[in-house]
Amino acid sequence: MAKNITPRAEDYSRWYNDIISQAQLAEHAPVKGCMVIRPNGYAIWEKMQAALDRMFKETGHVNAYFPMFIPESFLKKEAEHVEGFSPELAVVTHAGGAKLEEPLVVRPTSETIIWNTYRNWIQSWRDLPLLINQWANVVRWELRTRLFLRTTEFLWQEGHTAHATEGEAHEETIRMLGVYARFAEEFMAMPVLKGPKTDAEKFAGAVRTYSIEAMMQDRKALQAGTSHDLGQNFAKAFDVTYQDSEGKREHVWATSWGVSTRLVGALIMCHSDDDGLVLPPKLAPMPCVIVPIWMKDEQKDEMTAAAEGIKADLNGVEGVTVDARDQYKPGWKFAEWELKGVPVRIEVGPRDMAQGQVTLVRRDTKAKETIPREAVGKRVPELLAEIQAALYQRALAFREANSHQLDDYAEFKKQVDEPGGFFWMPWCGGAPCEAKVKEETKATIRCLPFDAKAEAGSCVVCGAPSERRVVWAKAY
Amino acid sequence: MAKNITPRAEDYSRWYNDIISQAQLAEHAPVKGCMVIRPNGYAIWEKMQAALDRMFKETGHVNAYFPMFIPESFLKKEAEHVEGFSPELAVVTHAGGAKLEEPLVVRPTSETIIWNTYRNWIQSWRDLPLLINQWANVVRWELRTRLFLRTTEFLWQEGHTAHATEGEAHEETIRMLGVYARFAEEFMAMPVLKGPKTDAEKFAGAVRTYSIEAMMQDRKALQAGTSHDLGQNFAKAFDVTYQDSEGKREHVWATSWGVSTRLVGALIMCHSDDDGLVLPPKLAPMPCVIVPIWMKDEQKDEMTAAAEGIKADLNGVEGVTVDARDQYKPGWKFAEWELKGVPVRIEVGPRDMAQGQVTLVRRDTKAKETIPREAVGKRVPELLAEIQAALYQRALAFREANSHQLDDYAEFKKQVDEPGGFFWMPWCGGAPCEAKVKEETKATIRCLPFDAKAEAGSCVVCGAPSERRVVWAKAY
Repeated sequence: MAKNITPRAEDYSRWYNDIISQAQLAEHAPVKGCMVIRPNGYAIWEKMQAALDRMFKETGHVNAYFPMFIPESFLKKEAEHVEGFSPELAVVTHAGGAKLEEPLVVRPTSETIIWNTYRNWIQSWRDLPLLINQWANVVRWELRTRLFLRTTEFLWQEGHTAHATEGEAHEETIRMLGVYARFAEEFMAMPVLKGPKTDAEKFAGAVRTYSIEAMMQDRKALQAGTSHDLGQNFAKAFDVTYQDSEGKREHVWATSWGVSTRLVGALIMCHSDDDGLVLPPKLAPMPCVIVPIWMKDEQKDEMTAAAEGIKADLNGVEGVTVDARDQYKPGWKFAEWELKGVPVRIEVGPRDMAQGQVTLVRRDTKAKETIPREAVGKRVPELLAEIQAALYQRALAFREANSHQLDDYAEFKKQVDEPGGFFWMPWCGGAPCEAKVKEETKATIRCLPFDAKAEAGSCVVCGAPSERRVVWAKAY
Repeated sequence: MAKNITPRAEDYSRWYNDIISQAQLAEHAPVKGCMVIRPNGYAIWEKMQAALDRMFKETGHVNAYFPMFIPESFLKKEAEHVEGFSPELAVVTHAGGAKLEEPLVVRPTSETIIWNTYRNWIQSWRDLPLLINQWANVVRWELRTRLFLRTTEFLWQEGHTAHATEGEAHEETIRMLGVYARFAEEFMAMPVLKGPKTDAEKFAGAVRTYSIEAMMQDRKALQAGTSHDLGQNFAKAFDVTYQDSEGKREHVWATSWGVSTRLVGALIMCHSDDDGLVLPPKLAPMPCVIVPIWMKDEQKDEMTAAAEGIKADLNGVEGVTVDARDQYKPGWKFAEWELKGVPVRIEVGPRDMAQGQVTLVRRDTKAKETIPREAVGKRVPELLAEIQAALYQRALAFREANSHQLDDYAEFKKQVDEPGGFFWMPWCGGAPCEAKVKEETKATIRCLPFDAKAEAGSCVVCGAPSERRVVWAKAY
């Protein structure tokens, strides 16, 4: 298969689009800003959904579904919320052949419709905590879109929980941030920083937003998931109260948290290379492909049978596939499966078979190893685990190599575009300094990392005292 | 738990709403015609999705996702399609704070956006068949809505396939109808009739629509799934052609097929009783609940431990739960789990335990059996299978008892409302006779059942010759 992928070094943005188009992950839809998620892309999202859904259920959450249409008046009940989302709304004004009395907003997020519903579900402390998640599509009318990373309609999950106390809501916010970080690191093999966002960057309607932040291969940051401590903002806006065990009525405390199909974009940008997609085995719809090789037609059946035998030995690994297509040569197939990011390729040819062995090829390093045929059932799962770990370590090493401790704003301005990366710098905590940096460099404070050690310093902008460093970067 | 369910015999429609509300399956949303699917209801839909998705994948289909917004002009490309759906459309006219140049329709179904996309995906016979499914929400602005059965927004899956020949498309249409029938019968324990709809009842844009039809407990029919042979209608409207192996270009042949959250309504109406929900074990989120019983507080720990031990014995059965809540008495719990449709309840009390036995109670028949404690691991899965089979047999017997062969229209008019049921009657095949029956009785031809034997007769309406009976009924 002939590939035509722009190298990352030449044009990272075109490289990203080439990967998506040639690996057939997604494409632009005829409606501006919307995308079609093709089967290869959707299969990755399904693997993500399955892993996340399991983690949500293990932490006590159940799924439900709330309507996509929200009366416009609901949005207006939480002042910051409506201000934040108004510019991005898609509005249904006509339905069933008539003009609607009240326009309906297509949900940009579901806090308002959900908290309007929770009012009837929550009466007493016995109804709490309420731990609900929803898998859904949402719409935010974005001007500048990019496949997976920012699209007008996207798929996501949104958790919406209600608690009796501020402390419990805070705990939940941090717990789900931890679930996201664990998912990113264990499944996506993508190291992340965790921590609160600044007030300027928080969710419209939240008391505090926490995020996980990853570094892409162009050294830009990508916010990969957010968890919001909503305080009593939505409970007050929708008058959701509960009676505590002493009979006192109080407003409920809330959280919400979400990740989206943006994660597919992050996965691509984090690991893939100039030959195509590189997928971590835990999220690869096809973790292993077996390619029988024959020189003469009469070898085909034997080699295909040998390949099927290997597949049978790997029945504990979901998604293993034998590629015995006639119309393509082995080299073409190798290139195709590389492009599509299959973590391990097994080559089964007459010479190897005669010697009782097969060849394994890793997608990430291209390293080959020849192993005895009977070792396949043991070695392949092992190799998949090694690849999963190696991808994480490679991404972590890349992030560390591109993280800089700076104490000087002039120096930062020199480095922020080239080489770029994560800049750990002292900050006074003031919004004006944050805004100045954003205006002058387009870099933002990604988060106030939990990992940041206490360290007395001076804000790189104004020189006022700082207690710990925060992370600045240009971001998607 | 105190229940307040209107008996079926008194008011079937209120009974249905009472079940949904008291088992906390769903509720009306503030937007007219929309519903909130509560966690108990959504868990059933998740079980349905998992089983169906597996069946789709086993038959070679992959999932993808297409945008929810469809340019209004797309709908108009297939004349029958737009005529059928126009009255039900919800339309986005404004987005991002501005009026849109072209209004966007919220998908009522996705044929048009998908076939517009397929044009670029299909070039040669090698690209066929294209077998894609989508899980999504759709919107049809209905005037008269009912929870699950007919809502403005609903969740569904829609398969959209493309084939090289008319024959292959027809085979696929019938294959997926078969998948739906198998799902209805094996998972929902709901017997169905399979067959084509009449032209008057077919999908707007289809050459032929096939459906599965089930009988509810009020003897009305419910269309539970449809599979459409679309011929070349959409391929022509969107100019989707392929080059065959001889180099000739031809329009592609299409199918589409779907089932929706309506199935949850069907499930309720098919099996449930005046005490609440009755769920077939294969779709019950909680197939078995274990209730420890204690008279004195000091017995609680021992009985709860015994219940947990039984749960451990049932680790092959997903969703088994121990209900050791303090604040409710056993009788209250029994009533609650009956209401919620848990197929098997296991009671673990001090007297039984002293005798080394436990009590199993079936939800469907309320029959109790006492078995040795050590037999639980074997008996419970067996009993669940028995219940699954019994529910199907009961529903089948009910349908048979309420199916009538009639040859006389006057007699039909007497019986159609009371006792009601399925009426197998000769039909000439003419639309005027069909329309007359619909107008005079509100009954429609549900389908032309595959099972109908060749049988010469006279159309009940006009007396013209008929080759086989078709099934008339009033329907949801």
